[in-house]
Amino acid sequence: MTVTSTQIQLVNRPTGWPEPKDFSTVTVEYGDLAAGQVRVANEFISVDPYMRGRMIDTRSYIPPFQLDETMTGGAVGRVVATTVDDLPVGTLVSHMLGWRDVTQADAGEFRALPEPPTGAASSIYLGVLGMTGLTAYVGLLTIASMQPGDTVFISGAAGAVGTAAAQIARLKGAHRVIGSAGSAEKVALLTDRYGYDAAFNYKDGPVRRQLRDAAPDGIDVYFDNVGGDHLEAALDSFNDGGRAALCGAIAQYNATSRTPGPSNMANIITRGLTLRGFTIGNHFDQAGEFNREMSGWFADGKIVHDETVVTGIDNAVDAFVGLMRGENTGKMVVRTS
Amino acid sequence: MTVTSTQIQLVNRPTGWPEPKDFSTVTVEYGDLAAGQVRVANEFISVDPYMRGRMIDTRSYIPPFQLDETMTGGAVGRVVATTVDDLPVGTLVSHMLGWRDVTQADAGEFRALPEPPTGAASSIYLGVLGMTGLTAYVGLLTIASMQPGDTVFISGAAGAVGTAAAQIARLKGAHRVIGSAGSAEKVALLTDRYGYDAAFNYKDGPVRRQLRDAAPDGIDVYFDNVGGDHLEAALDSFNDGGRAALCGAIAQYNATSRTPGPSNMANIITRGLTLRGFTIGNHFDQAGEFNREMSGWFADGKIVHDETVVTGIDNAVDAFVGLMRGENTGKMVVRTS
Repeated sequence: MTVTSTQIQLVNRPTGWPEPKDFSTVTVEYGDLAAGQVRVANEFISVDPYMRGRMIDTRSYIPPFQLDETMTGGAVGRVVATTVDDLPVGTLVSHMLGWRDVTQADAGEFRALPEPPTGAASSIYLGVLGMTGLTAYVGLLTIASMQPGDTVFISGAAGAVGTAAAQIARLKGAHRVIGSAGSAEKVALLTDRYGYDAAFNYKDGPVRRQLRDAAPDGIDVYFDNVGGDHLEAALDSFNDGGRAALCGAIAQYNATSRTPGPSNMANIITRGLTLRGFTIGNHFDQAGEFNREMSGWFADGKIVHDETVVTGIDNAVDAFVGLMRGENTGKMVVRTS
Repeated sequence: MTVTSTQIQLVNRPTGWPEPKDFSTVTVEYGDLAAGQVRVANEFISVDPYMRGRMIDTRSYIPPFQLDETMTGGAVGRVVATTVDDLPVGTLVSHMLGWRDVTQADAGEFRALPEPPTGAASSIYLGVLGMTGLTAYVGLLTIASMQPGDTVFISGAAGAVGTAAAQIARLKGAHRVIGSAGSAEKVALLTDRYGYDAAFNYKDGPVRRQLRDAAPDGIDVYFDNVGGDHLEAALDSFNDGGRAALCGAIAQYNATSRTPGPSNMANIITRGLTLRGFTIGNHFDQAGEFNREMSGWFADGKIVHDETVVTGIDNAVDAFVGLMRGENTGKMVVRTS
């Protein structure tokens, strides 16, 4: 029995902002399962800022997407046909073969998941209980070595990683958590819903000045999802011994030329600062510890999480472009079933 | 009995390159020693790049020099009059009351030193056996976590810290040590005398290209004394997990406006790099370990060291300006006796 799968392919490498013409939607036929294979109907696929980097043909930590091939990325779904005993039909699984509604591959590509906690959809495993949450956890605690009593600044503060990082910071004893986002609505959510002590709209004025006003005693940790003027502002506000986890640089992802770095790099020397970049793929060894701690917090009702859900695989490209433009609050996912 | 001391004061805060008019030479009379005081005739005073930063009135890790007051800095000298038993006349001491030929202060300002090793002058305690050597040691091993097998790039490679760092790198098992300097003579010394495997003149062409040619397999550690295009080149040549110790940024010290940072900061994320700045004053806890290890290497004849010696306190300003212009090889000191 064959099944059809709707899949999104990259057909042009975007220069600047990605546009619908850079992608195409194709229908792929899957034949009978080979021995060892599993077929999965996806429930949700993930769109993430890092995917913009994979659309460029350059050396990076993860190979670029190939033209005229289906893109990949995080997804959760259920086994609908199987040839292996430990992944029976109905099993909820996570995998990296996203950007399609149905996938079929060797069983080794899929990881069985428990059913989601009461009240949550399976998309939670793409968000706070998945790679998004792990990124926030590792970035804050390992890369930036956040300590109780630290003042923490988070950019992209209303995004999936930012909202998770802020809540982890509070649960781990941060003295004060400050966030920046790009709309008044988001800024209100930061303090009203996600536990930030202070927040500002980076479009309202220079980040440098707004951060100084929000953190008059300086910052100890910066969780950087943005780069650019946000990183420069952090370098100006850092106390001695400050630490930055560089996680993303969405301000630069769609730039068409190399953008200059901060003009105050000398502060790194005089204040003894540490800037450390990371990609989560090198830190999966911390997934066990993360899963235990985050599941506990979640079960205790200590984690607020939000999603922006776009429905239909045909709208996945719009979802990705919207993510680039900051149209999401919390985790952006596409419901494919 | 009074004695006279010739001292150098800062009278204008330089903008751009320091000039003789920014300094004045004054004569100070010291009266009889008060209880607990010691008088020291200096043998050598140190001029160091970091002093340029102290000439600016800005927040920094160390207070700025005050106008119309004698500057301070590293020095070695001998006790010529004393009121305390543990610093008898003739004792060799190091202290931070430099920029003068004679000083007089509480005994707590001075630290007794052993006589220098055979063949070395007491200026060795301003160089490889002093703060210069400690800076190289801490920067390479603690800040940049150099491991055996690493490929190491050092800028300002013919300077006091650079030449020490290169030799420590070799003694600690670096695979390959690459240096950059600003003249053909210095570049020849780097490979012929200081044990660098490869070296280039940064004035010969883009640092980015020259570094790539010298390190075709990439670098793991960068010891940065220069900043600017050298740091940008290092970011382009780093292997995954690379580490930079940011020690100095002489390329920017005399800039009259903020200079943009590297245009390739995104590499910090995608390659998982760490940039860590430091000032040696926060790492004196490693002085004991450094003294033991470096003294052993020195006694075994494993350390080459050179000095550029300028004679006479009246020439101290010229020595400092020359240092800024890269006229030294190895440690720049002023002989004051």
